[in-house]
Amino acid sequence: MKKVNQRRNFLKQSGLIGAASLVGLPAMAFSGNANRKSLPYVNFTRDGLDFSTEDYAKRLVEITKAKWIAIDSYSNGGVVAELEKKMANALGKEAAVYMPTGTMANHVAIRKLAGDKPRVLVQAESHIYNDSGDTAQVLSNLNLVPINPGNTQFTLEDVKEQANRVDNGRVKTGIGVISIESPVRRKNNEVFDYAEMKNISAYAKENGIGMHLDGARLFNVPAHTGKTVKEYAELFDTVYISIYKDFNAASGAILAGSTEFCKDLYHTRRMFGGSQPNAWPFAAVANEYIDSFPADYQKSLEKAEELFNSLNAGYKLKKIDNGSNVMKLHVLNADPRETQLALLEKNIKLNNPTKDFKGFYFKINPSILRVELKQLVKYFTEATK
Amino acid sequence: MKKVNQRRNFLKQSGLIGAASLVGLPAMAFSGNANRKSLPYVNFTRDGLDFSTEDYAKRLVEITKAKWIAIDSYSNGGVVAELEKKMANALGKEAAVYMPTGTMANHVAIRKLAGDKPRVLVQAESHIYNDSGDTAQVLSNLNLVPINPGNTQFTLEDVKEQANRVDNGRVKTGIGVISIESPVRRKNNEVFDYAEMKNISAYAKENGIGMHLDGARLFNVPAHTGKTVKEYAELFDTVYISIYKDFNAASGAILAGSTEFCKDLYHTRRMFGGSQPNAWPFAAVANEYIDSFPADYQKSLEKAEELFNSLNAGYKLKKIDNGSNVMKLHVLNADPRETQLALLEKNIKLNNPTKDFKGFYFKINPSILRVELKQLVKYFTEATK
Repeated sequence: MKKVNQRRNFLKQSGLIGAASLVGLPAMAFSGNANRKSLPYVNFTRDGLDFSTEDYAKRLVEITKAKWIAIDSYSNGGVVAELEKKMANALGKEAAVYMPTGTMANHVAIRKLAGDKPRVLVQAESHIYNDSGDTAQVLSNLNLVPINPGNTQFTLEDVKEQANRVDNGRVKTGIGVISIESPVRRKNNEVFDYAEMKNISAYAKENGIGMHLDGARLFNVPAHTGKTVKEYAELFDTVYISIYKDFNAASGAILAGSTEFCKDLYHTRRMFGGSQPNAWPFAAVANEYIDSFPADYQKSLEKAEELFNSLNAGYKLKKIDNGSNVMKLHVLNADPRETQLALLEKNIKLNNPTKDFKGFYFKINPSILRVELKQLVKYFTEATK
Repeated sequence: MKKVNQRRNFLKQSGLIGAASLVGLPAMAFSGNANRKSLPYVNFTRDGLDFSTEDYAKRLVEITKAKWIAIDSYSNGGVVAELEKKMANALGKEAAVYMPTGTMANHVAIRKLAGDKPRVLVQAESHIYNDSGDTAQVLSNLNLVPINPGNTQFTLEDVKEQANRVDNGRVKTGIGVISIESPVRRKNNEVFDYAEMKNISAYAKENGIGMHLDGARLFNVPAHTGKTVKEYAELFDTVYISIYKDFNAASGAILAGSTEFCKDLYHTRRMFGGSQPNAWPFAAVANEYIDSFPADYQKSLEKAEELFNSLNAGYKLKKIDNGSNVMKLHVLNADPRETQLALLEKNIKLNNPTKDFKGFYFKINPSILRVELKQLVKYFTEATK
């Protein structure tokens, strides 16, 4: 208990927690932006590096000093066009269009793919169904049909069942789009089954149904499934990728597809109010990480597994079935809250303990590469004492 | 002619123009980001300082070093909340909500104010009518009625005429909103008449019609009309202000109104796909300029008038009736293109010559404060020789 109080006092003195926060730590306590600058910052809470405002600004200076960063005009041209090209290439798509958010990228894709067939099949647990304020329904008059509540997966049979319902309706309508999110954020980043995706994609093609992939975190998947981002992307007409998550931009998204699909799509973006006058402060940062992310993430994944598997004494690592960058870290003996506080002193950020089990859900990202394995083992070992 | 060729050669060697550009200068030649760093940069083309990517990045470092910049979460809280508060105060409104673009700010305001009365009166020359892709019509099923084509102004009589048309329709409908843009970009930033605005506002209040002000550049107006931004804002339920134009943010907008109006409006923003994960790289910059802009702009205006009125030999300054930060600079003897090139060598940027008269439309902004009047007089005088 003495040690516990010492930890709390340390954090109080560092300004990391206030007197009022002995029950729950305020969000700010977990920001990477505090008086721990002497130690490298590792987070197990985000998809990316979690830059502080100051570090992000410094990064922009480095980037603009290293080479000429051409300004965009209303999110067209310049370094934004570079990003679009880079991402299209990475995905094996002909073209790509910058979007300010994933919500808009998903909506614009589905809206255009749907054409005059207003039914859109989506996972009941998807972002577009739960976390977009019914945007496609309210603003584009589409009917989003939620499939298989509680689950990441659905099957070709589910699709056929919906097609059957459409065929039996008294007024002719149609399924315009099948949208698949993978990984699924609401399901701890579980990945949609590739073989089933392929079946569904083939059926969609035969039946003139558009296929959209909400792949905000798609670049996390290959290290877990052995399938490349291109293999996933080719099953879909359109793919949304976040540049905020894996690629450390403060905001931003990419919608990739055919040249035909992407042509003039910036007009739709502007109609939605999504053509920021300048998006270069986001695009320029993302461009720095897209090429290196796959290898960095692979290394990070291996390092995390090595770390947590070598901590037999106090922890137990458990993977999620069909999982990706989220895993479970069971804390065997210590109080997880104390473990969290102890690691925070070392500038290592964990989520708040979960109620699902004694321990943490954690995320793997390249910030783990900033500290040597031996050192991490030491920190984690000490944090359960 | 020899001097002309020297100028062109200088620009070619500086990489400012390519061999192919002897007819028209490419946009890049006019960027502030070139090999002229030894001279301060003055632009007569923008509402703001026109930062290069490198200078913007440096500015962010200065700002984040000078004080703690709290990160926002999906455009809520942190330095974005500071911006909202600062702008609400400046306008005399209870509250304000950050928006990614003016297009979205105008749309969201009109959509909510309209309620169940779908007719919206707008200037035929307004941004919302011409440059927003019919967003309010397409996405919100509103009927935007364009008033008084070709003109900045409309009158209470115009409003009453529209009200009369509504009253005589067979199906009951209603005017939900009157939206006024001032200054009007498509009319060289002419200002809407204050007295008429007041009449219209009083009528709207009596008749339960919402009033929206597209005041993207509202902060330019007081120096020209003697009315404060608060005097304008109080005639309206909602006011949109750009932070990209006068306040040098790379992107961003503010929608101000009552506490009741702004409450939970971030959900609508998110539905539209407008809640960027982080907007701090924009808000933090705007916050640096909002307080100082009115005085800086007043000084800039006086300096510009003094400059151009003292250049009797080669130029003639003409103001626009009901104008604001756009004026006309007639070039009396020289070829305006050569004048433009000569000034570019001094890191002074003018628009391309207009076809309306022999000379330039120019914009006044605080970048003029970077160079002494005497020096500017010298540059402009030499540029017609």
